[in-house]
Amino acid sequence: MYSTDIFAEMVEGRLDALTASRTPATLFAPIAYTLDGGGKRLRPVLLLAAAKAFGLDPEKALGQALGIEVFHNFTLLHDDVMDNADVRRGRPAVHRRWNASAAILSGDAMLTMATQLVAEAPAGMLPEVMRLFNTTAMEVYAGQQLDMDFEDREDVSLEEYIEMIRLKTSVLLACACRMGAMLAGAPEESQRAMYRYGELLGLAFQLQDDLLDTYGDPALFGKEIGGDIINEKKTWLWINAMAREPQRMRQVLDKKLTDYLKIREITEIYDSLSLPGESRRLIGRYTEEAVAALAGVDIPGAAREYFASLARKAAERSN
Amino acid sequence: MYSTDIFAEMVEGRLDALTASRTPATLFAPIAYTLDGGGKRLRPVLLLAAAKAFGLDPEKALGQALGIEVFHNFTLLHDDVMDNADVRRGRPAVHRRWNASAAILSGDAMLTMATQLVAEAPAGMLPEVMRLFNTTAMEVYAGQQLDMDFEDREDVSLEEYIEMIRLKTSVLLACACRMGAMLAGAPEESQRAMYRYGELLGLAFQLQDDLLDTYGDPALFGKEIGGDIINEKKTWLWINAMAREPQRMRQVLDKKLTDYLKIREITEIYDSLSLPGESRRLIGRYTEEAVAALAGVDIPGAAREYFASLARKAAERSN
Repeated sequence: MYSTDIFAEMVEGRLDALTASRTPATLFAPIAYTLDGGGKRLRPVLLLAAAKAFGLDPEKALGQALGIEVFHNFTLLHDDVMDNADVRRGRPAVHRRWNASAAILSGDAMLTMATQLVAEAPAGMLPEVMRLFNTTAMEVYAGQQLDMDFEDREDVSLEEYIEMIRLKTSVLLACACRMGAMLAGAPEESQRAMYRYGELLGLAFQLQDDLLDTYGDPALFGKEIGGDIINEKKTWLWINAMAREPQRMRQVLDKKLTDYLKIREITEIYDSLSLPGESRRLIGRYTEEAVAALAGVDIPGAAREYFASLARKAAERSN
Repeated sequence: MYSTDIFAEMVEGRLDALTASRTPATLFAPIAYTLDGGGKRLRPVLLLAAAKAFGLDPEKALGQALGIEVFHNFTLLHDDVMDNADVRRGRPAVHRRWNASAAILSGDAMLTMATQLVAEAPAGMLPEVMRLFNTTAMEVYAGQQLDMDFEDREDVSLEEYIEMIRLKTSVLLACACRMGAMLAGAPEESQRAMYRYGELLGLAFQLQDDLLDTYGDPALFGKEIGGDIINEKKTWLWINAMAREPQRMRQVLDKKLTDYLKIREITEIYDSLSLPGESRRLIGRYTEEAVAALAGVDIPGAAREYFASLARKAAERSN
């Protein structure tokens, strides 16, 4: 059975044990707090599903699945310090609940714990598994760096933006998909197709995230709506509006409005340009390309359907 | 030939290439700056010397030697953010020259780069090499955490202090020594002896560092003298003085003196208790235990002499 809930439960059940009664408690408490914060567990779910699709018992890929999830949570922890974010998943960020030093050091420990988990892979596969994991990690940092660099730039192009989210978000999903296939001994061609699936899924996922930041239902989204607009983040919506209506955008920004009015007026520009619909179409296109990437791959029909439905759900999600 | 200079040059020559023309430049510039800061390169020197002592061409252990050095520099980079330190090796710390976000993210990338370099080890040895490296990394974080925890405590014992510096400093030297032997295929017994040598060398090294912080020659030491006293760091000197002359120590601290006078009066207490001499004897004891740890190990006489002289030099160094 391919069930997101079952895969997610396998992961959830093992995350607690990673920090239980480890010392110094001051190092591991922020880690337990971070890993206990919920989240979709999308990356380990993808890894376990990919392993199963190519015939491996998902239990045998659980170490790597946990490793990828711990890595993902490490990036969120450090990103929150860098972005000075107060809240994560409805709770105070670690550097607010504790302090910046705790967030930095606990994050470092999470990166090493992630590496330890990934390195539990069978010895014969370890070199290529480590190579994939470490290369991906370097790309994720590059993505976060570009994201920060964009804050000081007014000329970010759509291509640059897509490349940034590919690095910051997509490659880790792609890595999870490929690593599951790799552990199951899938042929190189299939591993690449799984990687491509994850990469396109990631683009759809992040564009949907951007859309929800402005158009989401606050009760479902879990974050304040409009944060990207307040912070003038160069998202797909922002870059398009700036390219097509630079004067109107400038006029709104020059008014130094309250957060509420700024969100309302910028959203009006997005609406008048029909950007939400255009964004949804692009998300749909990435999703269908993701599904199509698996066309030639030799996996059971149930697996193919599962990956297709997972991609479509990620693209239509409201939280 | 066992020559610290030659081993250090092998490392120096390869460090630049790790960051040359890599993008985004904003991510790699702080890394290049950090790796270019000099330092003794003691850890990679130990790794290369250990590899050679057990018959491996040091060139074949260079990846792991670089990895350990990059890891060490990553810890310095993040420690400087956590400790709010302004200066490192006579230059502005990365978070001062750039900012905290740059220091955090570049440090993260250095940890992954270190792992990539260590993971270049021959496939057959990779599981145990990775295990040693990751276990050591977790211990180093635990040491840094204890160091921070001690700031808020008045009851730190000498045993706790020694355990903290063992974790924060010694285990990485020990890991370097053992990894060199491991890569050369040395027997388990010899690997353990090398580890023990590095561990004891590390204790001597750190106690000497503490001594130099108060008694060093400012022209040679490279840092302000007395920093530990100003920050009331629980060093071996401080803990001993507090245990033997708590009232005198309290009296000085309650006077809220200027930095200059605080250093002078606390140093006077240290002197009156003959703590410098006692510390030097303890350092000498650790050094000789380190040398003795190699007694039963089957390595050439030249290697044995080299390790002995390295330990004695580290214990007598003035910078």
